[in-house]
Amino acid sequence: MSPSATLDEAKGQQSAAMPLTVDGVAALRANGPQVPTGVAPSTSSDMFKSPACYTKPKAKRWDHIFSIESQARKVSTLKGAAKYLKNPGLISLGGGLPSPEYFPFQELSIKVPTPPGFGPEATRENGTVLTSAKGDVRDGKSLYDLEVALNYGQAVGAPQLLRFVTEHTEIIHNPPYADWQCCLNAGSTYAWDTVLRMLCNRGDYIMMEEYTFSSAQETVLPQGVNVVAIKMDEQGLLPGSLDDVLSSWDEAARGARKPFVLYTIPTGQNPTGATQQAERRKAIYEVAQKHDVIIVEDEPYYFLQMQPYTGADAEPVPPPKTHDDFIKSLIPSYLSLDVDGRVIRLESFSKVLSPGSRTGWIVAAEQVIERFIRNCETSSQNPSGFSQIAFFKLLDEHWGHSGYLDWLIDIRLSYTSRRDAMVHACEQHLPREIASWNPPAAGMFHWIQVDWQKHPGLASGKTHEAIEQEIFQAAVDNGVLVSRGSWFTASGLREESMFFRATFAAASAESIEEAIKRFGDALRVQFRL
Amino acid sequence: MSPSATLDEAKGQQSAAMPLTVDGVAALRANGPQVPTGVAPSTSSDMFKSPACYTKPKAKRWDHIFSIESQARKVSTLKGAAKYLKNPGLISLGGGLPSPEYFPFQELSIKVPTPPGFGPEATRENGTVLTSAKGDVRDGKSLYDLEVALNYGQAVGAPQLLRFVTEHTEIIHNPPYADWQCCLNAGSTYAWDTVLRMLCNRGDYIMMEEYTFSSAQETVLPQGVNVVAIKMDEQGLLPGSLDDVLSSWDEAARGARKPFVLYTIPTGQNPTGATQQAERRKAIYEVAQKHDVIIVEDEPYYFLQMQPYTGADAEPVPPPKTHDDFIKSLIPSYLSLDVDGRVIRLESFSKVLSPGSRTGWIVAAEQVIERFIRNCETSSQNPSGFSQIAFFKLLDEHWGHSGYLDWLIDIRLSYTSRRDAMVHACEQHLPREIASWNPPAAGMFHWIQVDWQKHPGLASGKTHEAIEQEIFQAAVDNGVLVSRGSWFTASGLREESMFFRATFAAASAESIEEAIKRFGDALRVQFRL
Repeated sequence: MSPSATLDEAKGQQSAAMPLTVDGVAALRANGPQVPTGVAPSTSSDMFKSPACYTKPKAKRWDHIFSIESQARKVSTLKGAAKYLKNPGLISLGGGLPSPEYFPFQELSIKVPTPPGFGPEATRENGTVLTSAKGDVRDGKSLYDLEVALNYGQAVGAPQLLRFVTEHTEIIHNPPYADWQCCLNAGSTYAWDTVLRMLCNRGDYIMMEEYTFSSAQETVLPQGVNVVAIKMDEQGLLPGSLDDVLSSWDEAARGARKPFVLYTIPTGQNPTGATQQAERRKAIYEVAQKHDVIIVEDEPYYFLQMQPYTGADAEPVPPPKTHDDFIKSLIPSYLSLDVDGRVIRLESFSKVLSPGSRTGWIVAAEQVIERFIRNCETSSQNPSGFSQIAFFKLLDEHWGHSGYLDWLIDIRLSYTSRRDAMVHACEQHLPREIASWNPPAAGMFHWIQVDWQKHPGLASGKTHEAIEQEIFQAAVDNGVLVSRGSWFTASGLREESMFFRATFAAASAESIEEAIKRFGDALRVQFRL
Repeated sequence: MSPSATLDEAKGQQSAAMPLTVDGVAALRANGPQVPTGVAPSTSSDMFKSPACYTKPKAKRWDHIFSIESQARKVSTLKGAAKYLKNPGLISLGGGLPSPEYFPFQELSIKVPTPPGFGPEATRENGTVLTSAKGDVRDGKSLYDLEVALNYGQAVGAPQLLRFVTEHTEIIHNPPYADWQCCLNAGSTYAWDTVLRMLCNRGDYIMMEEYTFSSAQETVLPQGVNVVAIKMDEQGLLPGSLDDVLSSWDEAARGARKPFVLYTIPTGQNPTGATQQAERRKAIYEVAQKHDVIIVEDEPYYFLQMQPYTGADAEPVPPPKTHDDFIKSLIPSYLSLDVDGRVIRLESFSKVLSPGSRTGWIVAAEQVIERFIRNCETSSQNPSGFSQIAFFKLLDEHWGHSGYLDWLIDIRLSYTSRRDAMVHACEQHLPREIASWNPPAAGMFHWIQVDWQKHPGLASGKTHEAIEQEIFQAAVDNGVLVSRGSWFTASGLREESMFFRATFAAASAESIEEAIKRFGDALRVQFRL
């Protein structure tokens, strides 16, 4: 734990002009303000960012982007009264906080991996047990404890965990403007619902990839918001298509103002597995600047960027040797390009720590974060205290940034093997006459194109929809479940092509091979090959 | 853990006509369906209710109550594909569930009270450590484990915890219609936001107590929903005022349809501390039936119903001797009166287990729960798995319903002492000439009326608002924070009377006395007494 580290102990000295590195965190913490350790304290990322951040220009003003609902939100009346709590000696009969003596949880312990032994077996045998007890803060044992975590909190999240994600964000993305902030939240599904309500009114349009996460679309439509699909290639979003849609927008014909929100999954896109490379992102960002568009980047798969695919018989590429190599191997995020503060980045722990924690965070310009917090205050409030204390103990007190990066590298290599097993199985078992694919560079999904024009059903007048369903059902009947591409179409069926999505996240390598074999057999029967 | 209990072992036999009791749970479980133990399984309260429920008539149909947003919600596309997972031998490459080997939490342990030693000291010394490990379900050690809890789940919540809250709901409230259900959620603040979006369109009015929880109002207004205030007395909501508002509603003058949603905190109301007695609730329910109103009962303080107040020098009333006595001592909820299925009950663990868990549940008619779940699916999803597994281990596997009721009785007696300390301090230290109050029967809040017409500022033309602020500031300057009554006014300031809210939830008895003494001194100076 670094708050006790002195400047001399800190390996790297953090100068005002240098971007934050893992080694610079100790010095930053030693020089920064103390983490507030009370119940539901005021906090923000500004407490935890390095001085280098403040040498940058501020974000643009975004007064014009907020929805009617969001504009109507005010600071919580009762939270406003918290300012008086700073008076020394004051006894508060104000807030309705229950006394922690009525929380029937005296201690919480978690058994977690001891680096470098990250696997389940190593953890069972040599894992580390981390314990948080009710009085740890009072007893000087920790900056965060169970009785604080289990009481009410501020919507921005616990400062102890907020500090970690703020530092992590700066180390990985180093946003090029000054006043970015983070806000913890109840996971990216919740964050997307909230961001939409913050930005859009009924009748508005937003832009999404033509194939996208079906739940993300199902969030949009009931809010009365419409989707305009942007075309994709094997790298995902096409900047030309984005520009076309925006340049040719006809408010009268559409009955709606020009869209100003782009939702994208840049890395290991769901469902296509496509990953936008650096140049593609720059091109998209420029279009967003040209039309003053907010980019919502939903990035659960960012750290599932894998080693390059080398083929079944080739030598694998050696893994990153240092943290610096690892960070450099990652494709720059939109956040890292964001000179204007027009990016809202949805960050998730779901794919790298656990989805059930229902804990993620967003990064955006201070003005946007302020409106987001106002919404959370009367909704989910903060993420579960059980989740926050577990993550804090693991990430901050046990692994630190260094151990967390080691864990992420470990995950990268595991997903590389899984992806390789999937692609090898496809090479071996799928009929090349009608099936094609690109090896995914990131994420959990393999997107298999099927040449439906060659399906014998076409001659007897079957529709795209009927043929897709027939292939899907044939696969199920042969013992494998894949997802139909049409489940992911952002605005109506696309008939030009037909896809199936297969995930390599969960099944074992043997099961993946057997499943793809079954899918291949089903395709052969369907296409009479 | 009861799944292994046989019918003979079960203490009480549960006949089809008998309401469920604590002793009847073992037999109910032995005869009921098995709890699904997989990842994100389909489940509902129907799996866990006693046969007695189904002898009752069904709820009314509520097709007409849902908002435009709610009506537009469809069943999740990807969750719909889950039905194929039942095929034996099927390999799923469908859902994007990460493999639990990448969850860096091998075990989670909590140290909790061993009944009857509920206090913090007893727990530190003799508490029980409950442990959940990743493979407990596979190993036959438990019905729920860490790897299931930390993966994705269904929006209704984990079946293992849903079973407990369903049984608890039936034991305590025994709703008088057949098709009620529970849905776990991310706490009542979240649930209220979601219920509102499910019922109301922009421009609608809802009804609230004239003084009510400020956060509940702050949830309503940005959604474009307006509040009409219902008058209160020392028991809270006045049925006559509710009937007046509804009977005299003028759609043209108001520019809005007649309100059909009543939000109320029936027990230990925030901020007034008022508790509606049984006859009052019946009268309100009848008005709701007359005007076809949905009652949203927000009940965080239901189990903070206290022993009767007997005065500083009188003997306390003996605590409930049996669980049955305890349950009978509780004022019947709206849910327990709800023959129509028009009540949406917001249940919270915040005041009795811990607010930081961000876990509660709602109870309502099946049709309402179905729409609520649709909303959660694209928002908070389910409560944190860390919270759900901790509550399951404590409530289901360790305490059982019997131990939980013992805990609630313990909390009742603790809050009784706190309330008594507060009321005694007021009797001793507040100037009776201008201050008056009723001893609260439930909750955390004491509501002190101040006769502001006697304030010397009135002569010099000071407003109600200015005088309230002056008294508030004088109290802060004298070292005590209380809340201003005007912070809780549902629609504009009420000038007839002036109130301050003081909570007895958090401070010690000595601090409460000192704080009230300071408040009394501030009042004397303010009123020149």
